[in-house]
Amino acid sequence: METLVRRIRQEGRSLGQGILKVDGFINHRLEPALTLEMGRAFAARFGALGVTDVSKVVTAEVSGIAPALATGVALGVPVVYARKKRPVTMPDALISYAPSRTKGGVTPLYLSPEYVGADDRVLLIDDFLASGQTILALAELIGRCGAALLGVGCAVEKTFEPGRETLSGLGVPVVSLAAVTALSGAGVRVENGR
Amino acid sequence: METLVRRIRQEGRSLGQGILKVDGFINHRLEPALTLEMGRAFAARFGALGVTDVSKVVTAEVSGIAPALATGVALGVPVVYARKKRPVTMPDALISYAPSRTKGGVTPLYLSPEYVGADDRVLLIDDFLASGQTILALAELIGRCGAALLGVGCAVEKTFEPGRETLSGLGVPVVSLAAVTALSGAGVRVENGR
Repeated sequence: METLVRRIRQEGRSLGQGILKVDGFINHRLEPALTLEMGRAFAARFGALGVTDVSKVVTAEVSGIAPALATGVALGVPVVYARKKRPVTMPDALISYAPSRTKGGVTPLYLSPEYVGADDRVLLIDDFLASGQTILALAELIGRCGAALLGVGCAVEKTFEPGRETLSGLGVPVVSLAAVTALSGAGVRVENGR
Repeated sequence: METLVRRIRQEGRSLGQGILKVDGFINHRLEPALTLEMGRAFAARFGALGVTDVSKVVTAEVSGIAPALATGVALGVPVVYARKKRPVTMPDALISYAPSRTKGGVTPLYLSPEYVGADDRVLLIDDFLASGQTILALAELIGRCGAALLGVGCAVEKTFEPGRETLSGLGVPVVSLAAVTALSGAGVRVENGR
């Protein structure tokens, strides 16, 4: 997605230790037009891969919500965002744990089987693909709900991280809109996604 | 907003202690069409109140992101979502604290002055108006950024909570799309917002 690649090239900042700052358009501030374009880009990419009849988009809070909602808008299907703390309204939610390298420890993810079921054909959408552990935990939850996982889409893939390899066992297409191939000093190398 | 009122009437569940479960369309699962309609409804309501030249929508993670993004889409302006944990990318973020009655203790809110500044004319959008404390903390952050607060919009107002009174000192219009006037047993009383 050219506009996203260009934006990362202009504004993305390498903060060391593999951290990419894209707060201006993904993790803190959002531009509606760019966000909606991400959704259309995911819809087009998966469509071209023959992924059809998607019935639900699933993501995890926080920064996955915007690109997931945009994908839901583009496909005309509902979006479910897994929670990281169990809400009082979700006593029956399923739980999975994603090891977090940047934050240390594990992050719990809660998904209610009330909203994802055996009839669902699911696209997983998130902001970043790095370790792949969040996506893997979400995929496990979707499987436990009995739903079919059709594909994984991430706005920004860090190709120097093991995410894509980690997800290969899922046996579904993994799509990224922008691929960051190197972060060093103040430099960010970015190209079209895969 | 009739569609939201109807949806709450059909699907909202009173869980006791003033808790309203609307996970099916606000706090866990989202319906793109309904969410986008919320954004258009906020834009229309504030427009009718003479609130013009909005330059930014501000909210807090997590459940505020969807209605805020929808409002940004409707108004064609960027959205900034305050974080509840300080991201490693935001060492200079301003912090404010919102007392949390349901969760106990206080919730920190982080907003980067890099993305909200003295030229900004801000609408605050959130999912719920109950105690009003989150909105109050966000309004304080916006003031410290030097921006002008033009109005506050909440998808669902609990009229039996003190939120609207708490926010009266802000001196800006407070708009809700649906007003829940009573929660008791399994019953939810809801009408058009204010």
